[in-house]
Amino acid sequence: MNEELQNKRHTLAHLLAAAVLEKYPHAKLTLGPAIDTGFYYDIDFGDGDTPGDTDLKGIQKQMKKMVNKWTEFTHREVSADEAREIYADNPYKLELINEIAEKDEAITLYTCGDFTDLCRGGHSENPKEEIAMDAFKLDKIAGAYWRGDEKNPMLTRIYGVAFDTKEELDAYEKQQEEAKARDHRKIGKELDLFTFSDLVGAGLPLFTPRGTMMRDLIVDKIMCIQAKYGYTKVSIPHITKSDLYKTSGHWDKFEDELFHVKGKSDTEFVMKPMNCPHHTQIFNSQPRSYKELPIRYAETTMVYRDEQAGELLGLGRVRSITQDDGHVFCTLEQIEQEVENIVNVIKEFYTSLDMFKEGNYWVSLSVRDMSDQDKYLGNPEVWQKAEATLEAVAQKLNLPYKRVEGEAAFYGPKLDFMFHDAIGRERQLATAQLDFIMPERFNLSYTDHEGNKQTPVMIHRAIAGSLERFMSIMIEHFAGNFPLWLCPTQIAVIPVAENHNDYAQSVYEKLTEAGFRVELDTSKESMGKKIRQAKKDKLPYFVVIGDKDIESNTVTLESRDTGESTSITVDELVVKLNTENDV
Amino acid sequence: MNEELQNKRHTLAHLLAAAVLEKYPHAKLTLGPAIDTGFYYDIDFGDGDTPGDTDLKGIQKQMKKMVNKWTEFTHREVSADEAREIYADNPYKLELINEIAEKDEAITLYTCGDFTDLCRGGHSENPKEEIAMDAFKLDKIAGAYWRGDEKNPMLTRIYGVAFDTKEELDAYEKQQEEAKARDHRKIGKELDLFTFSDLVGAGLPLFTPRGTMMRDLIVDKIMCIQAKYGYTKVSIPHITKSDLYKTSGHWDKFEDELFHVKGKSDTEFVMKPMNCPHHTQIFNSQPRSYKELPIRYAETTMVYRDEQAGELLGLGRVRSITQDDGHVFCTLEQIEQEVENIVNVIKEFYTSLDMFKEGNYWVSLSVRDMSDQDKYLGNPEVWQKAEATLEAVAQKLNLPYKRVEGEAAFYGPKLDFMFHDAIGRERQLATAQLDFIMPERFNLSYTDHEGNKQTPVMIHRAIAGSLERFMSIMIEHFAGNFPLWLCPTQIAVIPVAENHNDYAQSVYEKLTEAGFRVELDTSKESMGKKIRQAKKDKLPYFVVIGDKDIESNTVTLESRDTGESTSITVDELVVKLNTENDV
Repeated sequence: MNEELQNKRHTLAHLLAAAVLEKYPHAKLTLGPAIDTGFYYDIDFGDGDTPGDTDLKGIQKQMKKMVNKWTEFTHREVSADEAREIYADNPYKLELINEIAEKDEAITLYTCGDFTDLCRGGHSENPKEEIAMDAFKLDKIAGAYWRGDEKNPMLTRIYGVAFDTKEELDAYEKQQEEAKARDHRKIGKELDLFTFSDLVGAGLPLFTPRGTMMRDLIVDKIMCIQAKYGYTKVSIPHITKSDLYKTSGHWDKFEDELFHVKGKSDTEFVMKPMNCPHHTQIFNSQPRSYKELPIRYAETTMVYRDEQAGELLGLGRVRSITQDDGHVFCTLEQIEQEVENIVNVIKEFYTSLDMFKEGNYWVSLSVRDMSDQDKYLGNPEVWQKAEATLEAVAQKLNLPYKRVEGEAAFYGPKLDFMFHDAIGRERQLATAQLDFIMPERFNLSYTDHEGNKQTPVMIHRAIAGSLERFMSIMIEHFAGNFPLWLCPTQIAVIPVAENHNDYAQSVYEKLTEAGFRVELDTSKESMGKKIRQAKKDKLPYFVVIGDKDIESNTVTLESRDTGESTSITVDELVVKLNTENDV
Repeated sequence: MNEELQNKRHTLAHLLAAAVLEKYPHAKLTLGPAIDTGFYYDIDFGDGDTPGDTDLKGIQKQMKKMVNKWTEFTHREVSADEAREIYADNPYKLELINEIAEKDEAITLYTCGDFTDLCRGGHSENPKEEIAMDAFKLDKIAGAYWRGDEKNPMLTRIYGVAFDTKEELDAYEKQQEEAKARDHRKIGKELDLFTFSDLVGAGLPLFTPRGTMMRDLIVDKIMCIQAKYGYTKVSIPHITKSDLYKTSGHWDKFEDELFHVKGKSDTEFVMKPMNCPHHTQIFNSQPRSYKELPIRYAETTMVYRDEQAGELLGLGRVRSITQDDGHVFCTLEQIEQEVENIVNVIKEFYTSLDMFKEGNYWVSLSVRDMSDQDKYLGNPEVWQKAEATLEAVAQKLNLPYKRVEGEAAFYGPKLDFMFHDAIGRERQLATAQLDFIMPERFNLSYTDHEGNKQTPVMIHRAIAGSLERFMSIMIEHFAGNFPLWLCPTQIAVIPVAENHNDYAQSVYEKLTEAGFRVELDTSKESMGKKIRQAKKDKLPYFVVIGDKDIESNTVTLESRDTGESTSITVDELVVKLNTENDV
């Protein structure tokens, strides 16, 4: 978001607060920042009158009225004591004032129109002139804990969306509507892909047979693509002694997200939030020679992270996260080829989803922030070389990449793949990350040509990322109309009447033998109902079998995507499906 | 173990204690029971002289000497106070006396020769005459906590093995030696199938690429066999709110084995020790009709049980247990067919391991103990019918079964499959269990023909059981010489010299394309070394390629099992391997 837009959004947050105070003078203001699509303000209405969704229009009107007097922002610095006096009856602002004072920073009050707020600045200079008042809208009201901590009081958060122009606001609203129609929670339920149970808990999805089939199809596709690059599967448990993370250095970093596990003994176990430390232990189980490198482990396995209950969202954010994980252990010289291989796997995989095409994705070459080099561990020369290697791969493979400074991990630079979904949202999916730190921490080594011990480099790679998140994105991207290879069921065979069942059965068998996932519907329902069901299930194809089909030894094929109906022999159908599957 | 043998073993425990006291008068006796292969006695030697392995012979000699005076057991009942006086300086016996007194049971002292012990009885009447003193041996010394609790003092446990005859003892010792040579921990390391890490923890194996391949081969074999019976895969997380087990009734039963999981929130999570309750939640996610039944879910997934650290043993006993699990939800009438299908899967699977053959296995029809019917939940009529159904299946399929009363689970009767391994040890592997209780507890239902709600029956089934335990048993059964289908690598291609590499490469490719798991060894090692490696890896086959092979367009095939070497074309080899794989 550019600074000008951010300033507009922040200004609108002030205006919102001012309008709220006008109508709800008992309200206590807390914090009101700009966010990705607009702004919000968290307000404590105490026991007094509290606005609901139906009040948003009125507040919005009030904002539009008030903005006419908002032609200039002024500010002044005040002492902590003065600030405390001004906000004597607002415990939230007092908490903020004390924090700023403790850090010995300036305390500033910003005023526009008749409204003054404790604020660090960042506004439109002349709101009345600069802000298009038809390019914003108050959006919704939600509860939010003060500072996001569930131990604190619950506040009322009023959200607004805001853009530079009305056209952008309209486009955003249209996208939101489309997003709602494509919501993976809705479509996931309709297609019976996953479910949640109150007895099991929030953020812990249970995958039905169809959803599990889809998971397997994704994993198999990736395994199949990367088989030619020499990946082998490994298998690890989901818990470990905390010692593993104390050694890796994740203990302090991740402790807040860790699920702690306790049995009868005093041993301190945790659920794994990532797999790399376990994988180092398999590498380390044998002395290694340069002749064995690169060693490439792949594993699709669940990791567990204690996400806040309030942030869980269908499959988009879960506590049991299935990672399509892979780790390469190699020499510095082998990095280039290995990253190239990983990019090729990503390319082949996303091509099968028709997403790896110009203009539809870009690659973040995530490198160090050179002005803050202390953040990064390891030898700067190695960093320099590694960043250059990643850039060389990006160039060689003609990737549309941008160097993004400061986006590297503390342990190494990376390539992050960003894709646009069908309604224009950007989604980070695949990644390849270099790691110079973990191999050292675990004392990994191999013997080089000359018999000397060397430390390998580690490459972390994910193709789909988390299967749950990937599935949520794919469901929404395709609105459930998955490409043929990703469909749990690919084709339904529907006999018109009972006397067509035998022929339908033989068609079913031929298609099944040819390796397709077929459903034969010989239930007593009407043909119309069977067809409606196949459409509701968003099957890419169904074939109807009646007298004419039996006579001509064909089937009547109907396609989900074209809506066309054609008469075709089963052999032709097999060829057609195979061709589509191979894309 | 029959009562007579048990009495002999228990008598020998007394004799051991007497001999120990002779040599170590400061020893405090605690408990000395008969066990599966003999007996032991746990003794506290305090700070005084303590026997080591080298002292066992001397103690054994002393036992053989003392037995000559052991011609008659006598016993007398004493009051608690009298017993306390006798054992005033033995806190262990005092603890036992207090417990017996509390339960208001008789306190008895048994005497033979000059030795008296606090004991419930169960001895040979005339040890000198009845016990063959060449049919027992003191075996080993180990540490053991008083009453198995690690918070208690560590005692010295002296183990003896004992049988009716010297021949049986010899046979047992031979089996033990064979077992040692086949120890899965040793062979597993040699074949690089799995490893353990101190940082990860005891009982938490990490599977290497070869071990993971073997796991996948087992799982794929089972999935492939049962696919024709309509099983579909589901996928669940490894944790759940405790509510799930409070509803299922497992909470109290399993609490001691549960790993408890704690995040930031107050929610009480646990790691799943079984999968059935989760699977009920998938069944329950939709209203079900009789038309959908049977619904069959299969999932190979890890469960977690907090086994005592001291009881962990390689893969034989672990904390992360991969269950090859399956659950069928069906009507009472469908049980027979479903159990028959499960038995057919078991039959096909164990036939592929050459274990499902007459004399090599038997089936326990585990039914209620009719004298203790209160132990079992559910309607006795349903039990009666279910037991009869299982027996009918066993008869229909000509299974060598025995009715074993009292071996049913509290929730239903079952069929347990017991196999003999290569050195005669009995191993319980597959199982099919009926369950009338869990569906009720979770309020599962389906709508029957007439539109009424009915409760389905659940069948729990495992084919391999736990993959870890199954692998430990298979490694020991085959001594690492797995059947072709179970080998992570099936065949090595070994060129004699560098100029044979191209031809070797083409052989490698043909075999790989034909679907076999092949290793091509083009390293610079000598042919002799390569062959030794292939033998060390226990590969079922390797082919050597030299000048003559290239001339005649063949390969020289050597078989692990026959040791024979034959000249054969690659096409013939493919046919041969396929034939062997299909068995």
